[in-house]
Amino acid sequence: MTPRSAPDDVVDKSRVENLSDGVFAFAITVLVLTISRPTNYAQLAHQLLERWPSYATFVISFLLIGIMWLNHHTILSYVKRVDHAFFYLNLVLLMTVAFIPFPAEVFGEALRTGTGERTAAVFFNAVITLDALAFSGLWLHATRERRLLKDDFPEKLRRSSTNLFVAGTGVSIIAIGIALFSPWASLAFDGAGVFFYALDPISKRIDHGAA
Amino acid sequence: MTPRSAPDDVVDKSRVENLSDGVFAFAITVLVLTISRPTNYAQLAHQLLERWPSYATFVISFLLIGIMWLNHHTILSYVKRVDHAFFYLNLVLLMTVAFIPFPAEVFGEALRTGTGERTAAVFFNAVITLDALAFSGLWLHATRERRLLKDDFPEKLRRSSTNLFVAGTGVSIIAIGIALFSPWASLAFDGAGVFFYALDPISKRIDHGAA
Amino acid sequence: MTPRSAPDDVVDKSRVENLSDGVFAFAITVLVLTISRPTNYAQLAHQLLERWPSYATFVISFLLIGIMWLNHHTILSYVKRVDHAFFYLNLVLLMTVAFIPFPAEVFGEALRTGTGERTAAVFFNAVITLDALAFSGLWLHATRERRLLKDDFPEKLRRSSTNLFVAGTGVSIIAIGIALFSPWASLAFDGAGVFFYALDPISKRIDHGAA
Amino acid sequence: MTPRSAPDDVVDKSRVENLSDGVFAFAITVLVLTISRPTNYAQLAHQLLERWPSYATFVISFLLIGIMWLNHHTILSYVKRVDHAFFYLNLVLLMTVAFIPFPAEVFGEALRTGTGERTAAVFFNAVITLDALAFSGLWLHATRERRLLKDDFPEKLRRSSTNLFVAGTGVSIIAIGIALFSPWASLAFDGAGVFFYALDPISKRIDHGAA
Repeated sequence: MTPRSAPDDVVDKSRVENLSDGVFAFAITVLVLTISRPTNYAQLAHQLLERWPSYATFVISFLLIGIMWLNHHTILSYVKRVDHAFFYLNLVLLMTVAFIPFPAEVFGEALRTGTGERTAAVFFNAVITLDALAFSGLWLHATRERRLLKDDFPEKLRRSSTNLFVAGTGVSIIAIGIALFSPWASLAFDGAGVFFYALDPISKRIDHGAA
Repeated sequence: MTPRSAPDDVVDKSRVENLSDGVFAFAITVLVLTISRPTNYAQLAHQLLERWPSYATFVISFLLIGIMWLNHHTILSYVKRVDHAFFYLNLVLLMTVAFIPFPAEVFGEALRTGTGERTAAVFFNAVITLDALAFSGLWLHATRERRLLKDDFPEKLRRSSTNLFVAGTGVSIIAIGIALFSPWASLAFDGAGVFFYALDPISKRIDHGAA
Repeated sequence: MTPRSAPDDVVDKSRVENLSDGVFAFAITVLVLTISRPTNYAQLAHQLLERWPSYATFVISFLLIGIMWLNHHTILSYVKRVDHAFFYLNLVLLMTVAFIPFPAEVFGEALRTGTGERTAAVFFNAVITLDALAFSGLWLHATRERRLLKDDFPEKLRRSSTNLFVAGTGVSIIAIGIALFSPWASLAFDGAGVFFYALDPISKRIDHGAA
Repeated sequence: MTPRSAPDDVVDKSRVENLSDGVFAFAITVLVLTISRPTNYAQLAHQLLERWPSYATFVISFLLIGIMWLNHHTILSYVKRVDHAFFYLNLVLLMTVAFIPFPAEVFGEALRTGTGERTAAVFFNAVITLDALAFSGLWLHATRERRLLKDDFPEKLRRSSTNLFVAGTGVSIIAIGIALFSPWASLAFDGAGVFFYALDPISKRIDHGAA
């Protein structure tokens, strides 16, 4: 299948963005409902402080979903049209994003209660790995033989981006390994990943390449 | 009532799309709240694995709503304007979509606890049938005498699409029948339907016809 | 203050529509979370059937919010710009809309359990009355001395619309009165109102006047 | 870094608005889920009345988030492009907004049950202070050396707006102080702040300056 100008892009790109933005926005906002509510208001200060692991998983999950939104936005800005396979791969990606509040809640609760932390940390990072895999799949489908890419998208950038997506999946698998060893270390690793991603020079280079 | 250029389309089509996208995005994302939270973190691994029927209904429901969104998007792309009846039929359709998280939760819980599965499966597929009926109603209203259809919409495609919507309703009624027999088989049938729909050649033919 | 072309409309109309559509879409979709979940899956069929009052309040509330969305959409289509007072009156309106899931849940539960129905019915219809008042306030602010109205908006239509908004408030006050007498009758009255509104000739006349 | 016409604004401004509007709309609507549901329908009237502190925190929180949306909208209307740092600062801002339903629920419950009110009031106003800090940070990043500001944005307005954002942070810190003294007074202070903001002449002057 060679790239054509605008053939069977039966799915309107802007409405796919609209649906995706909606799912990202709700998934990121629904995280607040996963913080367990205080049960004893006579010890409110204690109970609020004791919930700090839930706040930590809330913050990490929020930033992770925000970064995923940015990645998603970047992919769509590189793509000239949306075909059926892209739609379904995107749907699977949205599914893994919308699922995140569940492992995030479990992770926070496990850390707070000090029970089942290892399992919860593995579960959380396994879901993040599914996210990374879904991103890689979407990207590979869009860029294989430059199928859906805009014509002026630089070939060199395509290859470096592919490497980044594969690397991202690798990093999240490493996070699972760390979680087996120490739940807290895996949370710190996730947090470090978020900050690295927000500040790092690689994505900046890509941005400039794309500009 | 003969089709006219732009008479009483008092409802702005793009804002109806906006509201609909919002309802679809929220209904699909709220599904994650319907997975029952672990109750005993000392047995977390066991409890997370034991929830796999809930994950299965989550996945099937998510993909079903995603496909409904795609159908909805297709209908609106064929329609040149939105009249009051279309608005109300669309509202009823959105209502049946927004209701799905309830039977999805019940289905997952019934399968997980091994109690009331048959009832839950019938309930779930009955709601999906309501969805299919609402889609058929919206489509028939829009296309009857080509009322709201764009002028260049091919007549042959109108008839084949009508057949598909009626067939979709039939398939979901069959799913109710299977649910009476075996809840698990009905879930598998729903899943197969999703994959068939995503891959099948009929809709592809339609897409090309519409292009 | 005489109407001017585009003076201090510091609030972008399309983003106000965006925020409003979001609030309407979530408020209407969150209704499904207010249906009480089954507690005993051994009696699932019984428990699902027994919930029919909750389904009834779900349907009525969903259609009511949908109609409010349509009204909101109509008002904004008549308005040429959004000033600060309009923004705040709209915010109050959105607040009364976003609150509806609470009385809707209470109403459904009261009818289902057969306890506190009268109170719940009065509460529900009182909130709907607040909604009607907020709509009237928004409309009066926008149309007083034709402040925010588009220049070609017919004066006659302005007056008849004002009458309709005032009448709507009156109807919802009557519903409170009926609720004091019979909760079921007030629910039926609300349902009849929805169907009357969807079919009635008055709004049709207005639409044509506005076309 | 000198201001340039449109260099590395890799993040599409309109999609950032879209995501932000989604988060604001959802956070504001989810507030209704934080009102504790009646537990005894035989005393429904009593229980509904007794919840008035929850209604009060609902109203205050709703208006606060609405005003934050308006501020956010204003900032984005002044900005000509979105860079990576703006995106991440905006993400942190959205995080503090999405978190509000949690302290709002805790505040309402504490006031209703008459337990832990002081702690809850401090917690609520501390989160509002985080919001104010996030707003200041976003504004300072956007306006420092006029980095992201539109070229025709008046220098005088930049300075007065900065003062306002800093003042807003100061006001919310004062609210924490009041909360330590009296939870009810801090709620009243928050409410007064909302009304002052909606009516005050300072923002009006700014609007006119910007027109």
